[in-house]
Amino acid sequence: MGNSKDFVKEITNIEDDFAQWYTDIVRKAELADYTDVKGFIAIRPYGYAIWENIQNYADKRLKEHGVKNISMPALIPESLLNKEKDHVEGFAPEVAWVTEGGEEKLEEKLCMRPTSETIFSTMYSKWLNSWRDLPYKYNQWCNVLRWEKETRPFLRSREFLWQEGHTIHETAEEAEKFTLEMLNVYADVIENLLAIPVLKGRKTPTEQFAGADATYTVETLMHDGRALQAGTSHYFGQNFSKPFDIKFQNREGKEEYAYQTSWGISTRLIGAVIMAHGDNRGLKLPPRVAPIQAVIVPVAMHKEGVKEKAQEVYQNLSKTYRMELDIRDQYSPGYKFNDWEMKGVPVRIELGPRDIEAGKCIVVRRDTFEKIEVSLEELETKLNNILEEIQNNMYQECEKRVQDKTTIAKTMEEFEKNLAENQGYVKTMWCGDADCEEKIHEQTGAKSRCIPFEQEHIADTCVCCGKAADKMIIWGRQY
Amino acid sequence: MGNSKDFVKEITNIEDDFAQWYTDIVRKAELADYTDVKGFIAIRPYGYAIWENIQNYADKRLKEHGVKNISMPALIPESLLNKEKDHVEGFAPEVAWVTEGGEEKLEEKLCMRPTSETIFSTMYSKWLNSWRDLPYKYNQWCNVLRWEKETRPFLRSREFLWQEGHTIHETAEEAEKFTLEMLNVYADVIENLLAIPVLKGRKTPTEQFAGADATYTVETLMHDGRALQAGTSHYFGQNFSKPFDIKFQNREGKEEYAYQTSWGISTRLIGAVIMAHGDNRGLKLPPRVAPIQAVIVPVAMHKEGVKEKAQEVYQNLSKTYRMELDIRDQYSPGYKFNDWEMKGVPVRIELGPRDIEAGKCIVVRRDTFEKIEVSLEELETKLNNILEEIQNNMYQECEKRVQDKTTIAKTMEEFEKNLAENQGYVKTMWCGDADCEEKIHEQTGAKSRCIPFEQEHIADTCVCCGKAADKMIIWGRQY
Repeated sequence: MGNSKDFVKEITNIEDDFAQWYTDIVRKAELADYTDVKGFIAIRPYGYAIWENIQNYADKRLKEHGVKNISMPALIPESLLNKEKDHVEGFAPEVAWVTEGGEEKLEEKLCMRPTSETIFSTMYSKWLNSWRDLPYKYNQWCNVLRWEKETRPFLRSREFLWQEGHTIHETAEEAEKFTLEMLNVYADVIENLLAIPVLKGRKTPTEQFAGADATYTVETLMHDGRALQAGTSHYFGQNFSKPFDIKFQNREGKEEYAYQTSWGISTRLIGAVIMAHGDNRGLKLPPRVAPIQAVIVPVAMHKEGVKEKAQEVYQNLSKTYRMELDIRDQYSPGYKFNDWEMKGVPVRIELGPRDIEAGKCIVVRRDTFEKIEVSLEELETKLNNILEEIQNNMYQECEKRVQDKTTIAKTMEEFEKNLAENQGYVKTMWCGDADCEEKIHEQTGAKSRCIPFEQEHIADTCVCCGKAADKMIIWGRQY
Repeated sequence: MGNSKDFVKEITNIEDDFAQWYTDIVRKAELADYTDVKGFIAIRPYGYAIWENIQNYADKRLKEHGVKNISMPALIPESLLNKEKDHVEGFAPEVAWVTEGGEEKLEEKLCMRPTSETIFSTMYSKWLNSWRDLPYKYNQWCNVLRWEKETRPFLRSREFLWQEGHTIHETAEEAEKFTLEMLNVYADVIENLLAIPVLKGRKTPTEQFAGADATYTVETLMHDGRALQAGTSHYFGQNFSKPFDIKFQNREGKEEYAYQTSWGISTRLIGAVIMAHGDNRGLKLPPRVAPIQAVIVPVAMHKEGVKEKAQEVYQNLSKTYRMELDIRDQYSPGYKFNDWEMKGVPVRIELGPRDIEAGKCIVVRRDTFEKIEVSLEELETKLNNILEEIQNNMYQECEKRVQDKTTIAKTMEEFEKNLAENQGYVKTMWCGDADCEEKIHEQTGAKSRCIPFEQEHIADTCVCCGKAADKMIIWGRQY
């Protein structure tokens, strides 16, 4: 089964080839696997457990904001997809079509949902009567299909899991406010659960969702300095409510079209966790989202009483923490240490005959590799502190990277130089012209991440065209 | 908005037209609605919350049995579906085919999963090496598509939500044992959460799942005496592991094919709850699965302090129970009483100025309409008892119906007479011949429910052909 050194060798060096490192982690840590259908992955138990933790955390937050879960059809008739012009242009090229059902050719072809604005809109139009019914704040956890050309597990798959929330409101103001409330839920999930700092802002019109008036985003920065869009929240105004006839009698007794939002996070967040925190030992999971928070590895397991004591400690800690006990016969402790490090378990607890005699154990942190002697009596209490410290430290490590890799550019020369040295976020002023945006993308490979909510005035002119500019914008190469 | 009488009038009488009553409940109680895609429903928040409660309860039980959740692709290549002969014959006629993706015709068409034995088998074959890896006990909560000709919300839809568990084991014995363990989890969910007694047994070969060696079932009896198959668990032996090459090195170092199971429950259970418990006032939900366990309806809400007190009681009870407070201005208390009865909320709490003065409230049970005076001080404690009593009473009501509607038939004349009078379950002896089964179905419209685990010897001969018979079997018309 190989020794510790072989183990690490199986994973490509993170600095040599980050893309291959990523794929190695996904497969070796058994997060996901390729399947017989191109671009479709199987999410394995260890990967899915991360998703379940994200779901539980996010679902609770959404419900605190009055969101209710529902289930809409997975198939959308072609005529329905075509109702909103920008939307169909954005999605039609990448949908999968069902054309036969029950051994017959369908009269109208049906697409597997790439997103469900059209279906929610149709049903909202059926259900809505009066301002008293509003708001509708509905969400579904489901799969969606987008026929991407280039795919990569979690980051860009032809099928992925997500939640898509769709709301309608009485006023534009309320809808816009809710759009930002949902963005803040995402920031909460990503920062507090996944220990990844986010950059919040508004997408440029070019980068907006197909059919939206405004798209807000939470952007994250990965180990290699590339950006990942981690969640988005869209304000539609009446763009869908008009073609879909979602209207209600308002407080003045008049007919009015509803104001709409939608917002989503997906299994892409698993990719974010891998790429934000991982290192050359493998995956590194923040304790709050880790399926296994601590693993007990008995040392000299054949010695009398070791296995029994390990089992006792395991039973105790399992009441409070998500625990694993590794009593596999066929592997050495050294192999197991590496195995669990590779799987990113935040804490390893080593327990040998001498430790037991002395009433203690060795706690090893995955983030710093620090070894801490802890008495068995205090273990249950101290473990909580250690896990919280790891969670905070992991966040700070990422925060530091964001600071290190965020630069200011006042000229295109600076822009290119910064990107070449750092990747990361490049802050510039921007005139607001889509042509400049396109030119920058062509010249640097970077796309606009967002116009951050927190603005700074770093220059008077657009980095690209030199015209007057009052918007600070952040750019970066992306996943 | 109509008064109380109009309210009940909107629902078809349950004895006059049970099918129409069912549809009325589904739509008026806002459990689900039809959509623009034939045979596809939208599950609304109130219906979906029932499903979430079922999911939470079942998921916890499954995890106690070592089951882990995963996610497999929604699409299956045609060649994969064709690998197991019986399986493809069973499902090919009712699948939906994706033939185009990303504006191109696919080289091989892909079906939307009707069930995922073929995919799990393919991945298990990739992952499995040694007996040490076994068992794999994986499950997914997902949607599936079956292109049914006749559809009815929850009971038979072209799309439905379910969990499908798929396991592989080292020995036939272990796999068979696990098949029954899962059946018992389903019995637990249906009896203890949904308050519906189940009949447990084995399906006849004719009624078995396509590709299975044995199918076990939990059968339930609805208000009108028709049976509903509520969950099934299948033992496959090596039927899939051989064509899909799922093999492992066994303890003797030899290659062996794994032993396999699968099992599922679905949103059909929502239909079971509606049809097992509902009455002429509408839906009647067992407290443990009810999205709202108790609703507070203030009486004379305009009087000083009433709304405030109601809010206070609501805040307190919400810590322990799933509560609703109905302070809608536009409806009378009478309207609200009927509305919440129709929605099946187990307990209504009436709170008026005089009650508040006397420090009490009126608790009204949805199952018996009994009115109970409870002091506000004791309300939190007593509510728990009342909810438990309702849960038990609802189970017993169903249990009584099963007893009343279960008859014995020794001849076909008796069989037909019993069914005509009672619908319900008809117990007979059966020779084991599929021809007799088919004849009985043609003659009576009843299908075999199962060969119950609890056998009785009620005669020496088959009810149909008169030949020697040693199996007691139960029949019934079905949903």
